[in-house]
Amino acid sequence: MSHAVSPLAPKHVPDTPEISGVRIATGAAGIKYKDRTDVLLVLFEKGTTVAGVTTRSKCPSAPVEWCRAKLKGGKARALVVNSGNANAFTGKTGRAATAFTAKLASEAAGCKPAEVFLASTGVIGEPLPAQRFDGVMQDLAEKAAPGRFLDAAKAIMTTDTFPKVATAQAKIDGTTVTINGIAKGAGMIAPDMATMLSFVFTDAPIAAPALQAILSGAVIDTFNAVTVDGDTSTSDTLLAFATGTARARKIARANDPKLKEFRAAFTKVLANLSEQVARDGEGARKLVEVIVEGAVSKKSARRVALSIANSPLVKTAIAGEDANWGRVVMAVGKAGEPADRDKLSIWFGDTRVAHKGARDPAYEEAKVSAYMKSPEITLKVSLGLGKARDRVLTCDLTKEYVAINGDYRS
Amino acid sequence: MSHAVSPLAPKHVPDTPEISGVRIATGAAGIKYKDRTDVLLVLFEKGTTVAGVTTRSKCPSAPVEWCRAKLKGGKARALVVNSGNANAFTGKTGRAATAFTAKLASEAAGCKPAEVFLASTGVIGEPLPAQRFDGVMQDLAEKAAPGRFLDAAKAIMTTDTFPKVATAQAKIDGTTVTINGIAKGAGMIAPDMATMLSFVFTDAPIAAPALQAILSGAVIDTFNAVTVDGDTSTSDTLLAFATGTARARKIARANDPKLKEFRAAFTKVLANLSEQVARDGEGARKLVEVIVEGAVSKKSARRVALSIANSPLVKTAIAGEDANWGRVVMAVGKAGEPADRDKLSIWFGDTRVAHKGARDPAYEEAKVSAYMKSPEITLKVSLGLGKARDRVLTCDLTKEYVAINGDYRS
Repeated sequence: MSHAVSPLAPKHVPDTPEISGVRIATGAAGIKYKDRTDVLLVLFEKGTTVAGVTTRSKCPSAPVEWCRAKLKGGKARALVVNSGNANAFTGKTGRAATAFTAKLASEAAGCKPAEVFLASTGVIGEPLPAQRFDGVMQDLAEKAAPGRFLDAAKAIMTTDTFPKVATAQAKIDGTTVTINGIAKGAGMIAPDMATMLSFVFTDAPIAAPALQAILSGAVIDTFNAVTVDGDTSTSDTLLAFATGTARARKIARANDPKLKEFRAAFTKVLANLSEQVARDGEGARKLVEVIVEGAVSKKSARRVALSIANSPLVKTAIAGEDANWGRVVMAVGKAGEPADRDKLSIWFGDTRVAHKGARDPAYEEAKVSAYMKSPEITLKVSLGLGKARDRVLTCDLTKEYVAINGDYRS
Repeated sequence: MSHAVSPLAPKHVPDTPEISGVRIATGAAGIKYKDRTDVLLVLFEKGTTVAGVTTRSKCPSAPVEWCRAKLKGGKARALVVNSGNANAFTGKTGRAATAFTAKLASEAAGCKPAEVFLASTGVIGEPLPAQRFDGVMQDLAEKAAPGRFLDAAKAIMTTDTFPKVATAQAKIDGTTVTINGIAKGAGMIAPDMATMLSFVFTDAPIAAPALQAILSGAVIDTFNAVTVDGDTSTSDTLLAFATGTARARKIARANDPKLKEFRAAFTKVLANLSEQVARDGEGARKLVEVIVEGAVSKKSARRVALSIANSPLVKTAIAGEDANWGRVVMAVGKAGEPADRDKLSIWFGDTRVAHKGARDPAYEEAKVSAYMKSPEITLKVSLGLGKARDRVLTCDLTKEYVAINGDYRS
C-alpha cells in the first residue's frame, strides 16, 4: 500500500522545536502494518488544557465518542493514537477497546482515564485488538521524551505519502510561545482507511473554554475549507493541547487582546496543515484553490465553492489540464445558492474566461492552456450579487484516485 | 469521441409503434459532428398538449428558458432538438438563436413560434450557429413521417454509447393508447457535453395541466432517482407530448380514474428510459441499485440513498468489486439525515454484511466476493428508525470516467 510521494509535497519539512510539558514516544504494536510505527503516546504536564472538534458524521467511531465525552472535562494528561484500525462501526467491542486503551494509558501516565484522549485510523468494521497495547504502553511512557514531532506525524500515517508537521511562534504579553501541529490523511485515503486526524500542541497558558473558542473559530477557514472527495470520515478528529508551561498565569477568555497574535499563529498552523492534507489528496497531481466572490453571504460563497471543488467533472477537467469553464457554470448552477447566469464571471489564474453570462471574447486560449499545466491552479468565480467572499482548497481527480480506491481490500 | 457500447446496454431495442399525430425527421446540420444526424424535428397534429420538467440549475441554458416560458401555453406543434452545441452560457446571442430556430420551425410547421419547443445538447459556451438550420428545417418538415423513433433517439446522442427508446401501451376507457419515449445522456457525458434530454410521445387525449401533473409525479421515482456523478446539467429537459388522436374527448384531470392504467404505463416508460441512462453512465461497468429502508421519511431515505450513490469512495469500491460496507457507513453518516449507528444494517445482494452497528459475524466473504462480480449490484441499508423506504439507481466510478472527462477538449 505504498505510493510515491505526492508531487505537491512541501519541499522542506520544518524543524519543530520542543514544547515544554509535552513528551512523545512512538512504537510498533503490530495492529496492521509490519516494520513501521503504528502507535503514538503523548504525555502532558499536569494542568494541560484541551479542546477539540470531531466529525459531523452520524455514525462516529468509538474513539470520537470517547473524545466528545472527555472534552467536557477540559483536562488532558495523555493522547494515544493508533494507525491501521479505525475502531469504527465496531459496536460494543469498540467501546470496550477504547476503555481498555484509556485504562492502560492512564496507568502508564499516572492519571485518570478521563484525562486520556484517543484517536484511531485505518480499517472500518474490524475489532481493534487493543490488548496489543498492553505492555507497549508502559514501555512508551518510560521512553517518552521532548521533541519528536516528526516521529509522531509518521506513526499516525496510513497511506499518506508524506508526514505533515507545521510550527509557529507568537508572543503573549511579551512571552514567546510555540505551536506545533501534526496531521494525517485527506478524506478517505485508501481502501478502508478513513480519517483526517490532526493534533496541535502549545506551551501557551490558555483555559480550556478559551482554547475551544479559538480552535472552533480557526477550523472554519482551514480544515473545514478543504475537501478531497466530499466524503466525510467517521473518525475525523482535531485536538489542541495547551500545557501552559510558558507562562504562569492562564488566560481565561478567547477575546483577551493578549491572545491576538497567538490566535493568528494558531490559525496559521492549522492552515498550513490543512493545505498539506489537500496536497496529499488521493492521487492528487494539482492543488486547486477555488475562490468565490460577489456572493450574498460567506455561507453562500462557501457552498458554491464546495459545489465547484467537489464536482467530479470540474476535478477531472483540471486533471486533464482543461480550463473547462462550462463545467464551472454547471457547478455554480447546481449549488442551489443565489446565482444569476448573466452576472457570472470566471477566471483561471489571471485570465477571465467568461464574463456576464458568456465567453469572454478577449480571452487567449493559449495563455490559459499554458497556465493549466501548473501544479497549483486558482479558479475564481464572481457571482456579481453581493460583497461576500470565500475560498476552499481541493485537488484534482485522477485515474490514480480510482486505482487507489478501487483496489481490493488487502 | 466514440466509445465502445456500454456492457450494461439492453440486449434488445424495442420496436416502437407509430403514434398518430406525430411525424419525425432527422437531418445533418453540421453543428459539430461529421457524417451523422444532429438535428431532430418532430411535428405534432393540432390540439397536441405538452408538459415538461427542466433542470433545477440556477444557470439554465437558453432553450431551457425558452421551454419554461412556452410550457405555460400548454400547446405544441413542433419540437426541434440539436446535438453538438448546448446553447448554454451564450448570453444574448443564445436567446437570439432560440428565437431564430423557433421562427424557422414555425414557418416550416405552419404554427406560432410559441408552439415550438427546443432543446440543445453539446458544448457549453459556444454560440449556436442557428443559421445552419435555415433551409434544413423546411426540408425536414417536408420529409417528416410517422414512426422513426429510433432515428430520433440516434440524432440527439452526444457520447451516449447506445440510443435509448422505450414503449408501452395502456387502455383509457377501452381505447388503447401508445406511449413512446426517447432519451439521451447520463449527467455530463464527455468533455463539454452536458445534458440529459428525454421526450415522450403519446396519442392519449390529456389536457396540458393533467399531463403536467402526471409527468411531475412520474419523474420523482424515475429520472429524479438516477444519478451518475451528482453533477446537474444546465440543460436537462424532459418534455411529454399528447396528440389526443386516439380518442375524441380530452381528459381534463390527472386524478380521473380513467387515467390509472395510463399513468402506470407512462411511469414505466420513464423508469425504463432513466434506467438506460444509468446503464450508459460515463465509463459505467456496473449498474447499482441503492435501497434505503427503515428511514423516518421517504425524503430522508432519498437523501441517504443519494449520499451513498454519489460517494466517490462507494462507487470506486464497487468498480473494484469490493463489498466495502465501511464506506457505506461513512456515506450514511455524512448524509446529515437521522441515523443511529447501532441500529444500522447493510446488505450486498442477499448477504447481510453488517448488523446493528457492527460486522455481521455470520457473513461469508466468499459469497459476497462472488456477488460483487455481477454487472448489477443491489446495496441495501436498513436505518432501523422508521418505515419509509426509497431507491435510486447509479453506476460505478471507473478509470474510464476519469479518462472520458479528463481528456482535452477537442
